[in-house]
This record gives sequence, C-alpha cells and structure tokens, in this order.
Amino acid sequence: MLTDDDRALGVRLLAQADALAAFTEEAPALTRTYLGPQHRAAGDCLAGLMREAGMDASYDALGNLVGRYPGAQPDAPVLMIGSHMDSVRNAGRYDGLFGILSAIACVAGLHARGARLPVALEVVAFGDEEGVRFGITLIGSKAMAGAFDPAWLSVRDRDGISLREALVAFGADPDAWPSVDRRARPPIAFLESHIEQGPVLLQEGLPVGVVTAIAGAQRALVHLTGLAGHAGTVPMGSRQDALAAAAEMVLAVERIALARGDVVATVGRLEARPGAVNVIPQDVSFSLDVRSGRDDTRRAAMAEIDAACAAIAARRGIALRREPLYQADAAPCDPRLQACLAQAIAARGLPVRHLPSGAGHDAMAFPALCPMAMLFVRCGNGGISHHPDEILAAEDAAIATRVLADALAGVAGALQAPA
Amino acid sequence: MLTDDDRALGVRLLAQADALAAFTEEAPALTRTYLGPQHRAAGDCLAGLMREAGMDASYDALGNLVGRYPGAQPDAPVLMIGSHMDSVRNAGRYDGLFGILSAIACVAGLHARGARLPVALEVVAFGDEEGVRFGITLIGSKAMAGAFDPAWLSVRDRDGISLREALVAFGADPDAWPSVDRRARPPIAFLESHIEQGPVLLQEGLPVGVVTAIAGAQRALVHLTGLAGHAGTVPMGSRQDALAAAAEMVLAVERIALARGDVVATVGRLEARPGAVNVIPQDVSFSLDVRSGRDDTRRAAMAEIDAACAAIAARRGIALRREPLYQADAAPCDPRLQACLAQAIAARGLPVRHLPSGAGHDAMAFPALCPMAMLFVRCGNGGISHHPDEILAAEDAAIATRVLADALAGVAGALQAPA
Repeated sequence: MLTDDDRALGVRLLAQADALAAFTEEAPALTRTYLGPQHRAAGDCLAGLMREAGMDASYDALGNLVGRYPGAQPDAPVLMIGSHMDSVRNAGRYDGLFGILSAIACVAGLHARGARLPVALEVVAFGDEEGVRFGITLIGSKAMAGAFDPAWLSVRDRDGISLREALVAFGADPDAWPSVDRRARPPIAFLESHIEQGPVLLQEGLPVGVVTAIAGAQRALVHLTGLAGHAGTVPMGSRQDALAAAAEMVLAVERIALARGDVVATVGRLEARPGAVNVIPQDVSFSLDVRSGRDDTRRAAMAEIDAACAAIAARRGIALRREPLYQADAAPCDPRLQACLAQAIAARGLPVRHLPSGAGHDAMAFPALCPMAMLFVRCGNGGISHHPDEILAAEDAAIATRVLADALAGVAGALQAPA
Repeated sequence: MLTDDDRALGVRLLAQADALAAFTEEAPALTRTYLGPQHRAAGDCLAGLMREAGMDASYDALGNLVGRYPGAQPDAPVLMIGSHMDSVRNAGRYDGLFGILSAIACVAGLHARGARLPVALEVVAFGDEEGVRFGITLIGSKAMAGAFDPAWLSVRDRDGISLREALVAFGADPDAWPSVDRRARPPIAFLESHIEQGPVLLQEGLPVGVVTAIAGAQRALVHLTGLAGHAGTVPMGSRQDALAAAAEMVLAVERIALARGDVVATVGRLEARPGAVNVIPQDVSFSLDVRSGRDDTRRAAMAEIDAACAAIAARRGIALRREPLYQADAAPCDPRLQACLAQAIAARGLPVRHLPSGAGHDAMAFPALCPMAMLFVRCGNGGISHHPDEILAAEDAAIATRVLADALAGVAGALQAPA
C-alpha cells in the first residue's frame, strides 16, 4: 500500500523529529518548555522547514510560530493545521512535534507540485500546550480562540520569571497579545494530527484513527475518616478502617467505568494515615479522575461513583468528604471534518476507527473559534507517551501524513467559507 | 456486687495512677521513657507504695523495681506479679501502671490482715516494655527470662546516650545485668494484670477477662508493579493498575481475617507511585500485619492471604514481590493459671470471658522462664489506648484487683513449687 515515496517520507519525518529532539534543556532527556532558548531554536528550525515548503513563517506576539501557504485566491479563507512544540519533562519526541512536521510535509507536497487549494493553509507550532513552565496549559491555542487572560502575564515560573518577562526575552511582544486573537476573522477549520498516546490503535492494528471528541474530565479528592486502632487488639468486626473503605471505593470506580465502556476513571493518588504497620488507618485521601467523550456519560459515571462511595462509607461507619478539583466539558470534533478524515482513510483501503481522545490537545481550545477535528496516529511500545520510550513507526508517519494531505483537500469543499 | 471497701479501693487506685501520671517528660502529655529521671521518680513513688504494703523494694541492675513480700516459710517459692512503668509518647495513664498498682494493692490487703501465702510474692515494675527510648522492647522482662543481649548496652537513644550510660546515670549497674536473670531459681509463675487496650470487654459489658495467649504476629511488605499510563488515554480493559490490584488485596486480607474469626489482619501502610491525579499507578507497596493467639491459625491465614494476592496479581498482570519483616510465635498462657483466674472471676458471679491479647506485654517474655497468665481489665472509651483518652473505670479497677488477689491465693495451691 505504501509507495517508495511514502516510505521515504516516513523516514524523513522521523529523522526530523530526531533532529528536533536535540533542542532540549536537559540532554540527553528531552525537555523543551515554553519561551526557553530551546523553544526558540526548535521554532527557528521549524521555520526553516516551513520556508522550504513554500510558506512565510513568523512568530506571533505569544511565541506561536505560524507558517502561511497562500490559497488560490488572495482572499481565500484560512484552514489551520498544527500542534505544539513544547514538551513535558523527559518527554517523547513525537508528542506535538509530529503534528507540526506532518502538516509542513503536506504543504511541501503541494508546493512541490506548485498546487494551491481554495483555502490558505496556516501551519501553527503552538508555543505552550503542556503548561510545564507556568502551570497554564494551551496558552497558544487559547489565545487564538480569544481565551487569553492578561493576568497570565504576571504568572511566574519556578525561577521567578514572569510570562511577560519570558515573552520579552524570547523576542515576542506581551502587550500585543490581542493580535493573536483570531475571532475577527476565524479560520474555516482547525485540524490536528497527533500520536494517540494510548494503546487502542496499536491493539487493533490500525495506523490511524478519527477522534470523535476530546474527552471532558472531572477531578475530585475524596477524604475518608475512620477510627485508628491497634492492629492487634481491635477485632475485625469492630473496625472503622478508612483504607479498607477506600479499597472498596477504588474497585467500585474501576467496576463502574468498565461497565460503561465509554468512560475512563482513575484513582491515581492515595494516601493513608497514620501509615504505621501496626495501626488501623484512620484517614485516607484519594483522587478521582473521570473522563469521557460524552459529557452526559461522564456526569452519570461520576454520579454513580459518588453514590457507590457514599454507600460504602455509610455501611462502614466512615465519614466521607468530597472536594471537587476541576471540570471541563468535552470538546466535540466537527462531524463534517471527521467525515473528511474518514474518507481519506477509507480511500487508502484502511478501516475507519473512531475513538475519543482521553488526553487534552491544542484542538480543544478551537470549538470556540471554528470547527475542529483530529487525526490520531498509532503510538508504539504499548501506547507509552510523555516518556522517552514513546515510539512512532515511519510507515505510520507516512500514512498519517498522506491521509492529512487528502483530508485538507477535501475540507475546503466540505465546509462553506464564511461570507 | 461491690462493697464500699471495693469502691474505695477503685477510687484509690485511679488516684494513684493520676498521681503517677505527673511523672512525665512532656507535661501535660504523659511520656515516661526507660531510665529517664521521671522513670526514677515514678519508681521511687512505687517503691514507697510497696514499702507501705509491707514489701522490701529495690531496683535491680537494669532498673526494674522489685518489691518482695515474704511467704509463710523463708524458702517459699516466688510468685511474680507485675507490669511496666515506662510509657509510649503521649500515653494513657493505666497502660502498664495499673498492673503494678493493682498487684501492690493485693499485697497491701494481705499485709493489712497480717496474712502470708505459701509463696513469696514479688511485685515487679519493669523499666522497659514499650521500647520507646532504645528501640528494644521488653528489656526488663527479657532479662529476667535470660534473654538479655549484652550488645544492647551499646545501643544509643536519639540523643546519643548508650543504654550503658543511661543505666549508670539512673544509678543502676550495667555490668551486673546477669544478676537479673532468674533462670537459676525461677518463679513458680508470672501473673500480669493489664487494661485490654481494645474494645472486646467493653462491647460485651464485662469488667475482666482471661487472656488465652499473647498473639503471635507476622509482618510483611508487599510490593506491586503494574504499568503506568495516561489516565485519559488507556482504556479500562487495557490497564495494569497496581493500585486497583492493591485495593483488591486489601479487601481479601479483610475478608480472610473476618471469615476465620480468631485472627486479625491489617494493612496499615500503603503507598502508590507515581501518585499523580492523571497517571495510572505503577508501583504500590503495602504492609501486612497478621496476628492470632494460635500460630497454626496465623500461618494458615497468612498462607491464604498470600495465595489470594498471588491470584489477584496474576489475573491483573501485576508483578508481586513479598518482603517478610517480622515473625513471633504466640506466647500461650498457662491453662492452670488461666483456671485460677477464671475461678476467681466466677466466684464473684461474673461470666468468664477468655480472649487473646493482640498486643505484646511483659508476660510474653516469661514462658521461657515459668508459666504465665494475664488478666485483662475493661478499657473504656471505645477501647482506646496509647492515647491520653485511655479510660479505666474505678469499679473495674476494684474488681480486677479483687480477682487478682483471689487468684494469687489459688495459684500457690494449683502449681507445684519446684523441688
């Protein structure tokens, strides 16, 4: 199914990702945070690739790198494609970067043929998605969608440098942040290609998949209070063991999510006090993280979990207090854009797999601005991401790029340009 | 059932315990560690009570206070009674102390009537049972039973003071430690009265109970290794969640102990890593503490727990490593001595409740030296001990003391003196 050209493209994309992984603050580990010198160096390298692909390339006021490939007409609407160039600490090399490189390769293909689409293509390398440096995620994409909060300019990193100072040091212009806002002339769509960061495509033997929605998420802390006691002297039937209660709740969380199927629920943190070998645990706190591509499903699962925990606590004589931490609704992918991606996949003779994204992505900022959709690419090595063991196969990189290129051509026809 | 004299005795015993609680290193909290000035002051006060009760009283080479009330004949064998005068940090005032005060009151009763038993009574206030200062428990009782390790003399407390130095400062004689060993002329029996430190007698409305054995204990750490993953991207069915596995094991531990009835099993510590809200736990370690008055029961329960954990780990694809920490066999209470206590309880018209001791006590050092038995006294306030909220009722203190006095009279007849 792959031509020699396809194979060469895949190898080239991985080689580019390898080269960009050298722009790191913590070699040999890959760590590239927003507005650092390595962000600037990686961005300059990407700008070079953009220009080679026939684009103009420049940083906006917040350090996003934007490459522009004009459409057939000077006033053609914009179709935006992109992902992020920052990373977590000790990251994999494809998370974010692949979506940028793949988009540039699509434009390079048009440029090589001297072809223009009825839309202008803008490839964006977002400066901040992961939020490692300032604790704020999606700064670049939120700013484009009109959700930048100028109070963020005063937020400081762990070295005491404010976002404003970091932007100035980068060569960007903090006071020009409103210029990043695209609401006055929104793109007709935003497309993002990204490694799955999970095992679904890998387990099903599929190179790519169409994202249905970026999952909504709800987080809470649950605090349990039982009664401490001597591990030797309090009979089993007289105990109010907060850890045994928590164990039952952890299993209820797992059971409820498994039964629903379209939700994931995780207890990632659990602390038991006093934490002595010979003392019955009195206090336990644990975290809940519940996600689904469907908000109604997520809310129903959380309600079911809450009810199960309340029943367990009541039966065991344990006091329960629930502390909500966070809630974000799902960001649905546009059905017409999903159809364009599905059509491009099917045209290559591949099964079309729809799946939600459990992780957040730049694309989730866009529904406030324009329709968006995402293509997922198979993640190797069991689906590991945010880790140096993250793997992407050259063949998959090539297929995903061909699919994205075909979909871009289809999108201009599928969506009406704004008047 | 209680006479006015009995009531007065109970009130007096609690008043003595109140007074002795003033000998503390951390007022208003009660903390009295081995060989400190407060140990010496409390011991001197107890020596005064002993002398008032007709006894000779002196410290032995390791700081145990020994009071002696001669028998009817000069060469009468010794019946030993006692408990400990050290405490945990922020302790209750009856743990240990009550057993000493109650024994002194028994002798005072004989002395008031000018009565002698066919045995000499020795009341011992052990210097170290809790092990707070040097991290070694039961120093006093082990030394009497011939289990003192001279290497202990070099062990240092947190201020760098060795046991040897502390003994010298106390006025004791570290090099004379072999003189504490009673194996050459063992007592015919050791009896200890102690608050239950648990809720069994309280729940059953009984003032006293007969201990069947001091439970044997086994401790282990269980280490689980699963696979970390993104809480949003790894479907429920693809997870190797070490915390969910641990939760299932915690409930198996509880279920197995509940089903057996004569065993307690506790998971007191549990740590989950990496411990992030949005990451599936990869590594979990938890502690196991299993106790029973019967060693075969304890071993069978631990084997059942091990098998359950292994099955859970295998089913979930989790690696399990078990690290044994500690094992001590049960110290059985002598049946004839138990019968003497039971007879004294029944003679007062009270139901005879036999129960194991889940906690350790001085008596557990004695089976190597002579038969031993213990009387448990109801612990108020839910059974709380090792805590300032520890409560003992004056009526219960009186009943326990009357029972002990009657039992002492019975023991000399029940046991043959050594040749």
